[in-house]
Amino acid sequence: MIYVAIMGFGVVGSGVYEVMKKNSSHIAVKSMQDLEIKYILDKREFDDPEIASKLVHDFEVIEKDPEVRIAVESIGGTGAAYEFTKRLLSAGKHVVTSNKELVAKHGYELLKIASSRGVNYMFEASVGGGIPIIRPMIQCLSANEIEEIYGIMNGTTNFILTKMFEDGLTFEKALEEAKALGYAEQNPADDVEGHDACRKICILSSLAFGRHIRPEQVRCEGILSVTPDDVRYAAQAGLAVKLLGRYVRISDGRICAYVAPHLVDKNDPVSSVNDVFNAIVVKGNAVGEVMFYGRGAGKLPTASAVVADVIDAARHIDKTKNVDLWDDSGDFVEDSRVLRGRYYVRAEGSLSRAREIFGEIKPISGEMGGECVFITGETDGFDFEEKLEKFLRNAQVFSTIRVLK
Amino acid sequence: MIYVAIMGFGVVGSGVYEVMKKNSSHIAVKSMQDLEIKYILDKREFDDPEIASKLVHDFEVIEKDPEVRIAVESIGGTGAAYEFTKRLLSAGKHVVTSNKELVAKHGYELLKIASSRGVNYMFEASVGGGIPIIRPMIQCLSANEIEEIYGIMNGTTNFILTKMFEDGLTFEKALEEAKALGYAEQNPADDVEGHDACRKICILSSLAFGRHIRPEQVRCEGILSVTPDDVRYAAQAGLAVKLLGRYVRISDGRICAYVAPHLVDKNDPVSSVNDVFNAIVVKGNAVGEVMFYGRGAGKLPTASAVVADVIDAARHIDKTKNVDLWDDSGDFVEDSRVLRGRYYVRAEGSLSRAREIFGEIKPISGEMGGECVFITGETDGFDFEEKLEKFLRNAQVFSTIRVLK
Repeated sequence: MIYVAIMGFGVVGSGVYEVMKKNSSHIAVKSMQDLEIKYILDKREFDDPEIASKLVHDFEVIEKDPEVRIAVESIGGTGAAYEFTKRLLSAGKHVVTSNKELVAKHGYELLKIASSRGVNYMFEASVGGGIPIIRPMIQCLSANEIEEIYGIMNGTTNFILTKMFEDGLTFEKALEEAKALGYAEQNPADDVEGHDACRKICILSSLAFGRHIRPEQVRCEGILSVTPDDVRYAAQAGLAVKLLGRYVRISDGRICAYVAPHLVDKNDPVSSVNDVFNAIVVKGNAVGEVMFYGRGAGKLPTASAVVADVIDAARHIDKTKNVDLWDDSGDFVEDSRVLRGRYYVRAEGSLSRAREIFGEIKPISGEMGGECVFITGETDGFDFEEKLEKFLRNAQVFSTIRVLK
Repeated sequence: MIYVAIMGFGVVGSGVYEVMKKNSSHIAVKSMQDLEIKYILDKREFDDPEIASKLVHDFEVIEKDPEVRIAVESIGGTGAAYEFTKRLLSAGKHVVTSNKELVAKHGYELLKIASSRGVNYMFEASVGGGIPIIRPMIQCLSANEIEEIYGIMNGTTNFILTKMFEDGLTFEKALEEAKALGYAEQNPADDVEGHDACRKICILSSLAFGRHIRPEQVRCEGILSVTPDDVRYAAQAGLAVKLLGRYVRISDGRICAYVAPHLVDKNDPVSSVNDVFNAIVVKGNAVGEVMFYGRGAGKLPTASAVVADVIDAARHIDKTKNVDLWDDSGDFVEDSRVLRGRYYVRAEGSLSRAREIFGEIKPISGEMGGECVFITGETDGFDFEEKLEKFLRNAQVFSTIRVLK
């Protein structure tokens, strides 16, 4: 019998409880032993007698109970969650989490503590919710140099963009609908400004590159600047607007990592990924492109990944899994403008003038009311910005969006 | 240093060699030690001096060399590959393969030998080529009861169906093109009759269900009966024709598993998977649906998965991974007609008569030349067959195709 503690009984914590209860006999087979939830840590009280019987308000009860071998951290944030995780790992307990903020910020330090104490810090659920992505990438693609990762890593913004695309809604209307359906929080800043996606691309980048990439090193642009006009023009050109997190390996020592809206060709596998679904493409130098798709959030999908980690910890209760993250000492992130690509431009001006400045362009619409819309040829970001400035002079730019591929 | 032998130097074997050479320093980091290819077993001779220096023609050299800890079986088939695998596992060597035929037929026996000798028999590459699917399913989704698996598991037939759909080609023309591009073999029976997909759904079904499901237990229908007319009518109804392998858990003791063409709604994630790409959807009772997508075959993608298994074996050189496959004793496969679903019908007859017999139907075209095309309401396969017989009397049926969902 292995005893487990759940810390934080919100959406994820209660989902973990539900999945462990519902699939208990199946999970016992997979774990090769029985798992029992011994404690639930939460500030609140609960009516359900079974939950109430496991409830504790004092973290130290868990910390000091040698019977607890695995703890689920579903508190969230980087306050108590950070402190408790450090203390539990130091006490020789495995910790499993879906807390992307904590992993993105302090993952390296927590993995080192875990490794020094012979336990594991596991966070499959921190990226893509229930979608298997971290283990497949570091284990199943281990024969590859990972050259690129890109994907839809935030379901809320993908829902909003889908509504703008399919129903022609404004950002505000689409956000309202997302809130009504429970897909967006009352304060949606973390999602719509791209911070949530940023944490996830940091985690994937760190694992792909073997060195800790931190959120403050990664340029992050949300979807606030995307207008229904842009979405409509993109559709005209056979492109969808998607908020992507992206990682590109530049050399042995440098990478690009950023979050920004992209125009994506309809033949790209992520272009048809709609609503709250997530999809992450990983490109390896042997396998080519593989994609992982599913619900990137939600109570049971997230719990599915957390409990899988709990099972893995239970199966290897006395072992440490080596995670190849060996350096936290610097900033390995290159300005993403070094990447070559095409750009969508909607601005005051004429297509003929655009041709003069940018050379070959692909017009998306004729000129209407002094506005022109086009896609540039391939260029790097510095060159693009220089030409854009020249093109605009005193005129106005309405939108520029990077085109994927 | 861990020594590896490659047995069979065809497409997969030479791909393994190429990937291990190209990514050797990266692979050494991931393996936590150096890997060296000590032997290459093949009947043929090779000019390349490095390959020639490792070449052996006698299997016993590998079998009897205690330095060889891991062997890659890339011979294929169930003859020598079967015998050599048994002997190597019995000799305490790990064996890694992409040989779906052997795994589907003798996987249970080989896993048992491996387990009894404290080594591993690994076959991530046997399904979906380089796409991570086996490990993600059994590890990352381990908290779930797997309720259903379905997917495009054969690239050749998906290429042919894509050409029929997009370019209106006949099966014969599309097959010719597939051969010209190297996507189909000279004798394409294994692909177009569905046997290749059948082996893969057997492997996934066995792992999801924990009991060995054998190809001869699984009804297997290829794409030979699919006509350009059907593909066109399907497109009219917003559906794509895809050859799917499918597994459905019926109860604790019974499953359905079969291979057949399906009509797939355009909102289904597999409907936009075209050309030689594979995509496999796994539905768990916590995670919902997740999908794995990529190139399901090819030299380097397949080698990517084989080498990942080699790395995993090297990392755990003295350990056995437990694969939950515990029963080989019976036939657990239910007649797939027990599953409820809708059916596409193209036959002689009138829509009004079809309504009389089938009740609510969805017509796809008006009646032309005595032919009518429609989709039935939801029913099980026995009831459908009974009604179809009644509908036809002496008239002719041109096609019936199962509709997914």
